[in-house]
Amino acid sequence: MGKIIAEVTVVPLGTATTSLSQFVAEGEKALKNFPAVISLLTPMSTILEGEMAEVLAAVQAMHETPFQNGARRVMTCISIDDRRDREITMEGKLAAVKSKL
Amino acid sequence: MGKIIAEVTVVPLGTATTSLSQFVAEGEKALKNFPAVISLLTPMSTILEGEMAEVLAAVQAMHETPFQNGARRVMTCISIDDRRDREITMEGKLAAVKSKL
Amino acid sequence: MGKIIAEVTVVPLGTATTSLSQFVAEGEKALKNFPAVISLLTPMSTILEGEMAEVLAAVQAMHETPFQNGARRVMTCISIDDRRDREITMEGKLAAVKSKL
Amino acid sequence: MGKIIAEVTVVPLGTATTSLSQFVAEGEKALKNFPAVISLLTPMSTILEGEMAEVLAAVQAMHETPFQNGARRVMTCISIDDRRDREITMEGKLAAVKSKL
Repeated sequence: MGKIIAEVTVVPLGTATTSLSQFVAEGEKALKNFPAVISLLTPMSTILEGEMAEVLAAVQAMHETPFQNGARRVMTCISIDDRRDREITMEGKLAAVKSKL
Repeated sequence: MGKIIAEVTVVPLGTATTSLSQFVAEGEKALKNFPAVISLLTPMSTILEGEMAEVLAAVQAMHETPFQNGARRVMTCISIDDRRDREITMEGKLAAVKSKL
Repeated sequence: MGKIIAEVTVVPLGTATTSLSQFVAEGEKALKNFPAVISLLTPMSTILEGEMAEVLAAVQAMHETPFQNGARRVMTCISIDDRRDREITMEGKLAAVKSKL
Repeated sequence: MGKIIAEVTVVPLGTATTSLSQFVAEGEKALKNFPAVISLLTPMSTILEGEMAEVLAAVQAMHETPFQNGARRVMTCISIDDRRDREITMEGKLAAVKSKL
């Protein structure tokens, strides 16, 4: 099996503050423990590229970080793009679209 | 750690048919291997209730079924609701809203 | 153009409480102003069936309700299923899957 | 009301091809008709910034493009981040996280 690309958003609920950047930063730091997973921070999510098992482990680590920082409820959304007729990468997907613009 | 509730949508891409019900049915059948996970089929998704590790294993099994039935690309979306100040269940969440209507 | 089916989740952020059922109930009440839109409450979302313009108006009304109840930040997720080779309904989608189980 | 940030993914179903970049490119082209909406293409989505009404009009235009290019079923996912205690921008959200890393 090849690599998947997954998009992840981890949102703590009931945090009493509308600002989430500190929570997002903690999620990003958790990714340092997954050196085989490539990550890209966007204004709405984190996009991950790697083997399914490693990506899911990274997502679970990100999902735990708000609890470690005081949250008692977390919503995590994951979108997985898994293509098996040929390898996909974040870079390759972007390049394929841009070549058609 | 208690139970989570997760919503899952598994969509095969490039299937040559606009109808997906056969693929959805195969995903539902895969859940039979996860008796500890409670599931509810909705018109847009499958909602699962159980321990995180079991739910994620069930989601991965569902995600594999389109590949086993000819698809070569699959998009899977998962939303996880994880509340740790008290136990959540599908039934409890629905009842809490309905009591306020 | 025919009907679409859309799934909606409206989540207030920074609410100081982990419980969201009161907010969900207010969103459900807002749907009373859209009698042409059929709705189904699930443990993770509200599913709507109707014409695109009406469904989007209903979603926007739901999205406003947390602000009317004190929230200052709201995340709303919408998934739209729009099939134009034949009419889709919530009931029809469920029946198509169940007939294959 | 200020600006919202919305993330959009438009996926044609039953296209007989696993490659979607041509469809994504057509969606991007549709955004040219919405000069007041700022857009950012990511490997998994398009992120839009602008007034709610304009962003929703842009999303609907993107949602129509696969139908104009032969698709008969389209799934569109939208996540809206709407913060009203202060203005949010794509750049501001990224900067807030990066300053905490």
